[in-house]
Amino acid sequence: MVKLPLCIAVITAAFTIPLMAAAADEDALLKQAQEIFQPLPKDMATAEFPITRERVELGRSLFFDPRLTIDANMSCSSCHQPAFYGTDALPKPTGVRQRPHPRHVPTNLNAGTSFVIHWRGDRTNLEDQVFQALTSPITSGQPDEKAVIDRLTRIPGYAPLFKAAFPDEPQPMTLRNIAKAVGAYERTLVTPSPFDAYLAGNHEALPAAARTGLEKFINTGCVACHNGVGVGSGMYQKFGVVEDYWKATGSDPIDKGRFDVTKDPGDLHVFRVASLRNVAMTRPYFHDGSVATLPEAVKVMARVQLGVTLNDADTRDIVAFLERLTGELPANFATAPVLPPGAVAPVK
Amino acid sequence: MVKLPLCIAVITAAFTIPLMAAAADEDALLKQAQEIFQPLPKDMATAEFPITRERVELGRSLFFDPRLTIDANMSCSSCHQPAFYGTDALPKPTGVRQRPHPRHVPTNLNAGTSFVIHWRGDRTNLEDQVFQALTSPITSGQPDEKAVIDRLTRIPGYAPLFKAAFPDEPQPMTLRNIAKAVGAYERTLVTPSPFDAYLAGNHEALPAAARTGLEKFINTGCVACHNGVGVGSGMYQKFGVVEDYWKATGSDPIDKGRFDVTKDPGDLHVFRVASLRNVAMTRPYFHDGSVATLPEAVKVMARVQLGVTLNDADTRDIVAFLERLTGELPANFATAPVLPPGAVAPVK
Repeated sequence: MVKLPLCIAVITAAFTIPLMAAAADEDALLKQAQEIFQPLPKDMATAEFPITRERVELGRSLFFDPRLTIDANMSCSSCHQPAFYGTDALPKPTGVRQRPHPRHVPTNLNAGTSFVIHWRGDRTNLEDQVFQALTSPITSGQPDEKAVIDRLTRIPGYAPLFKAAFPDEPQPMTLRNIAKAVGAYERTLVTPSPFDAYLAGNHEALPAAARTGLEKFINTGCVACHNGVGVGSGMYQKFGVVEDYWKATGSDPIDKGRFDVTKDPGDLHVFRVASLRNVAMTRPYFHDGSVATLPEAVKVMARVQLGVTLNDADTRDIVAFLERLTGELPANFATAPVLPPGAVAPVK
Repeated sequence: MVKLPLCIAVITAAFTIPLMAAAADEDALLKQAQEIFQPLPKDMATAEFPITRERVELGRSLFFDPRLTIDANMSCSSCHQPAFYGTDALPKPTGVRQRPHPRHVPTNLNAGTSFVIHWRGDRTNLEDQVFQALTSPITSGQPDEKAVIDRLTRIPGYAPLFKAAFPDEPQPMTLRNIAKAVGAYERTLVTPSPFDAYLAGNHEALPAAARTGLEKFINTGCVACHNGVGVGSGMYQKFGVVEDYWKATGSDPIDKGRFDVTKDPGDLHVFRVASLRNVAMTRPYFHDGSVATLPEAVKVMARVQLGVTLNDADTRDIVAFLERLTGELPANFATAPVLPPGAVAPVK
């Protein structure tokens, strides 16, 4: 795992005075971190999914609007709450009409950097997630596209927003375009953190304990999966590499993970690796919210993934690092938009 | 209903040139409006319910926090949504565990100016409303004070907020103090509107159509009930003075209103007069959300309360006036606070 530039730095440090050695170690740590992680981009637009001001405005309204779902009382923001950094503080959320969701809410912040969406990777990207959610029996309860679009047509303020967002289309009010608009909005939701400032070269952006924690995070082996721009969310991995995960988490029921999607025995208990950005703000943890606190979650991961028993001091340092992955809430997420007024039909 | 200063203005106007007469009419209208209505205060603190920075900060967090309710998935802001000006765009909301609320959500904006709280006046003030809601089977589902406080004690960030808000109390974490804190927060939620600027003497704050609408609003008799600082919310009134209300609204079931609280036959179909501040942003209308649009609601009121059939032009003018009762959303309401992290126990 040790890369050449680090070796050179270490060798150089060995021939200098101790204070210089410490500084050289710090430089080596930064350099190593820069090889493993990348800072967040300004936004998460792609060639396929561009961001325009009009799409973001429409998408932001739709994200906060409960009138699209069957009883007109749940929106994307019901589970992805700004107050909890895009999660809901529950082990597993309850969907429409008291229907239980099977897994914990992953945050939608920075989610455009994720290689697939959802714990089992059964959504290819943000737009696919929104599209499927719009007629999901748990998330929406709406039977089909017509039912969702019927709601929107009863709110006069939406037609001009769709027209502005998709000016070349004669009938822009479609599920595909709702997905594109909400996706465009979500692709603006990035949360640059002190760790990004550190990656840009500012050592002081991380306090000493956090830098120690970063070093332990690297040397313990966490970075085998938690790397890249998302500090995770770049690959699949089995949960429980060296020990069955539920023995450490107390999970009940036991989730077969991606196996239930692919039926491939190699995917048994395999999940998308979670991004650790804003992890200190998004309790509880894991696909079933079975672990309540971050120190406990760090210990569980070291144990079941790496066969390492972390002591309290090491755990504290790693947590001090993870806490520096918390960024500011984007203003266009923290602040709710004023929605176009309009009562949809009374729900009987 | 015509007051002396208006008579003088009208007489004066009759002896001047037409342009002057128009100006004099405008002055008379403003003067009359200033006698009927009052502008919003800066906040709604009282001697009994003072506002402190610490109480507002605590109260704002509690207002947005779903972890106090039985399944930890509904907060005050679930019904009083910023995106809908403190309402939820539904005829009647659904409470915890799919339990139906009996009446439409009244906005919490400016609610500290209301003489009583709720449609039937069965809450004496904001603090009483919060206190009762915390263990209401529909709103909260929590059985008692202990259950609510247990939740808060599992979220480490709350203890210091309670200590700061109620520094003289050894055990500040109580339902009474939750009510005081949320009440203090809500007492900051005022929405000064163009109409307030008009009442302060700026004619131009209301466009011509809105001033015409104001005149019609006065002369039709709406101001008999919709007056004062709230443009309503200062008294009780029977809904359906000249005609049974449900014949105009199609309401089903028929609500006996305050009669069910007092058992006084004089209270049959009596409700608190709604404030019309922000009324254009809070569809649908009436205690059961039975009417979807503002023009329709204005016509229903003229018909069943005053025996007047308003034509479309008069209705349009009155609506143009009512639309100028919309104020800016307070920043501390539009923007969700970041809540103290903490997972409460998994809900089984």
